[in-house]
Amino acid sequence: MVGAGQLARMTCPAAIGLGIGFRVLADSSADSAAQVWAGTQLGDYRSLADLRAFAVGCDVLTFDHEHVPGAHLAALERSGVQVRPGSAALRLTQDKLVMRERLTGLGIACPRFAPVADLSGVEEFAGGSWPVVLKAVSGGYDGKGVWVCESVAQAAEVLDGGAGLAFMAEEYVEFSRELAVLAACSPHRQGAVYPVVQTVQRDGICREVIAPAPGLAPGRAAEAAELALRIAAEAGVTGLLAVELFETPAGLLVNELAMRPHNCGHWTIEGARTSQFEQHLRAVLDLPLGSPALAAPFTAMANVLGGDDGDIYDRYIHVMAADPAVKIHIYGKAVRPGRKIGHVTVTADRDHHDPQELADRARRAASYLRWGKEDGQ
Amino acid sequence: MVGAGQLARMTCPAAIGLGIGFRVLADSSADSAAQVWAGTQLGDYRSLADLRAFAVGCDVLTFDHEHVPGAHLAALERSGVQVRPGSAALRLTQDKLVMRERLTGLGIACPRFAPVADLSGVEEFAGGSWPVVLKAVSGGYDGKGVWVCESVAQAAEVLDGGAGLAFMAEEYVEFSRELAVLAACSPHRQGAVYPVVQTVQRDGICREVIAPAPGLAPGRAAEAAELALRIAAEAGVTGLLAVELFETPAGLLVNELAMRPHNCGHWTIEGARTSQFEQHLRAVLDLPLGSPALAAPFTAMANVLGGDDGDIYDRYIHVMAADPAVKIHIYGKAVRPGRKIGHVTVTADRDHHDPQELADRARRAASYLRWGKEDGQ
Repeated sequence: MVGAGQLARMTCPAAIGLGIGFRVLADSSADSAAQVWAGTQLGDYRSLADLRAFAVGCDVLTFDHEHVPGAHLAALERSGVQVRPGSAALRLTQDKLVMRERLTGLGIACPRFAPVADLSGVEEFAGGSWPVVLKAVSGGYDGKGVWVCESVAQAAEVLDGGAGLAFMAEEYVEFSRELAVLAACSPHRQGAVYPVVQTVQRDGICREVIAPAPGLAPGRAAEAAELALRIAAEAGVTGLLAVELFETPAGLLVNELAMRPHNCGHWTIEGARTSQFEQHLRAVLDLPLGSPALAAPFTAMANVLGGDDGDIYDRYIHVMAADPAVKIHIYGKAVRPGRKIGHVTVTADRDHHDPQELADRARRAASYLRWGKEDGQ
Repeated sequence: MVGAGQLARMTCPAAIGLGIGFRVLADSSADSAAQVWAGTQLGDYRSLADLRAFAVGCDVLTFDHEHVPGAHLAALERSGVQVRPGSAALRLTQDKLVMRERLTGLGIACPRFAPVADLSGVEEFAGGSWPVVLKAVSGGYDGKGVWVCESVAQAAEVLDGGAGLAFMAEEYVEFSRELAVLAACSPHRQGAVYPVVQTVQRDGICREVIAPAPGLAPGRAAEAAELALRIAAEAGVTGLLAVELFETPAGLLVNELAMRPHNCGHWTIEGARTSQFEQHLRAVLDLPLGSPALAAPFTAMANVLGGDDGDIYDRYIHVMAADPAVKIHIYGKAVRPGRKIGHVTVTADRDHHDPQELADRARRAASYLRWGKEDGQ
């Protein structure tokens, strides 16, 4: 696995269980996964030589992020390295314009979009109707690279601040809520889809997930599942595919895609029979996929963001004493305000079916771990 | 954690989640936990110098086996190392005669026992009634150090083969079944008990666990839980305490004790809110204990023993395809016939309440992974 962030870190327990030879390519020994994993190699994912050196002896190369240059991926494939997902599929996660064009070409509903070269392009796209969403075509994550502009002036500021970036404009969608669906596909083209979840984002960062999405119409859940499997098939995805969706009164729109374990699937560690991390390994290794069935009627996940006080451990005693069933996942990352440093999960007991109360418990534990400044909750 | 076997290996995911600085003392870099864990130090648990070097910078020292010499543990404690469980408690797991004397002193029912110095001692203990169980007072595990003798001749053979060992004799208990109960205690003396499980042993090795024990009378479950908490309190156990029990028509008898994560608790990874491995870490670190509640109506665990063919991985495809919900845990140990090399777990869905069918699924998967020679199942 190229990349040693929290996604690689949380893949380690899956590799421990399966007993497979798992290796991680880390920038630094301080990286989240590198802190824990014996099979860590240091190297730069932007260097083809480092990638080649890392791939030696690996049966399959996979990723915990989408930032490896596409040309490197293609070069590795040409020299016979099994890259999963492959460079063609990954391109959809590396270039948002390509992704939008591909999806709309398949007849899949997306927000209205257009590439924009300059401010007049943005104004033309807006047609007097604001807000408009500006996105960097590549390189963004966790809200970075996405700007909701309320006016021409704000759009001008974004464009000025992003010299050298390619931009696209998108309509601002008045969604009822955000959903996400996570599918896995193996090279044999076996597919598996997890139940559709509800996500709550703030400032572009996923803050909460409830699985399954409360009150989702069965028809809509089936539609989302089919959508994910269809995109995975059409794009030739191997491994996980996360599809972030807007639910609107008129139907579902695709927001973003990712082809790796994803924040919207952290709940699966406790809440599903097979965690997304194990599922990704099974998929890229072409093993039969695990059951994506729920392990509890509902599971709630809340992200822990960094606060002002770096010593989270001091607060464990309170969080654990207050709720002995909450599951803490801390990533070993340096605490910086607003940075994702962990998550907590709460699963419902068999006879307990109030997802909001569950989400409250998760949010409370995450807030307490964050401490410091109020985070608007 | 001193020792780097599968128990240390399965503690790694718990340490990853909690984000704590976890270190393992391994004999060799090929040890089960050493293969995966970055925080591995090499050293000999029989060497006080190595233990001292390992303890530097650790807040707490704990164990994945009971073979560290008691004198070393006491020496570490005298020099201020936090040893949990402490040497006094651990002595009950290192000396079966001390354990029996202590428990019977507390009025806790055990099989009838006596130290035996020679064959005439065994004959006197038997009083003409065979079989008699001979045990090495210390050093045994997984059936090693325990012999069921059907005759004087067999007892003679055992004693002859164990020159230098201290022996004790025990009555052979005609049990209805074997049970086990797992408790955790923190230095603050908070206690938590997992539901009582049914275990199936063959040749002294735990082969299967069903949690909770099917059809166990509520009064008997409460009795077992109280027993575990009482032993933990009286012996001053910090961390986990596993109590293996014989269920007989007349009541419960204590068979063995362990003070670490235990095979009878592997089911907790998927089947309980808090895995035994996380619980042990929380207990020895004096964090509030996690909920030991069931995460599913029933969970079945079956051990995978080594067969004739070392390549387990080749068989994953069949096991996973046959049962996508089975959880595989492989320990990375060299495959030798009869050696514990992994386990599999199956949890019941909400509406599914047939523990025997669940155990069949677990047994089938474990058998298939074992392959090679029939193992009597």
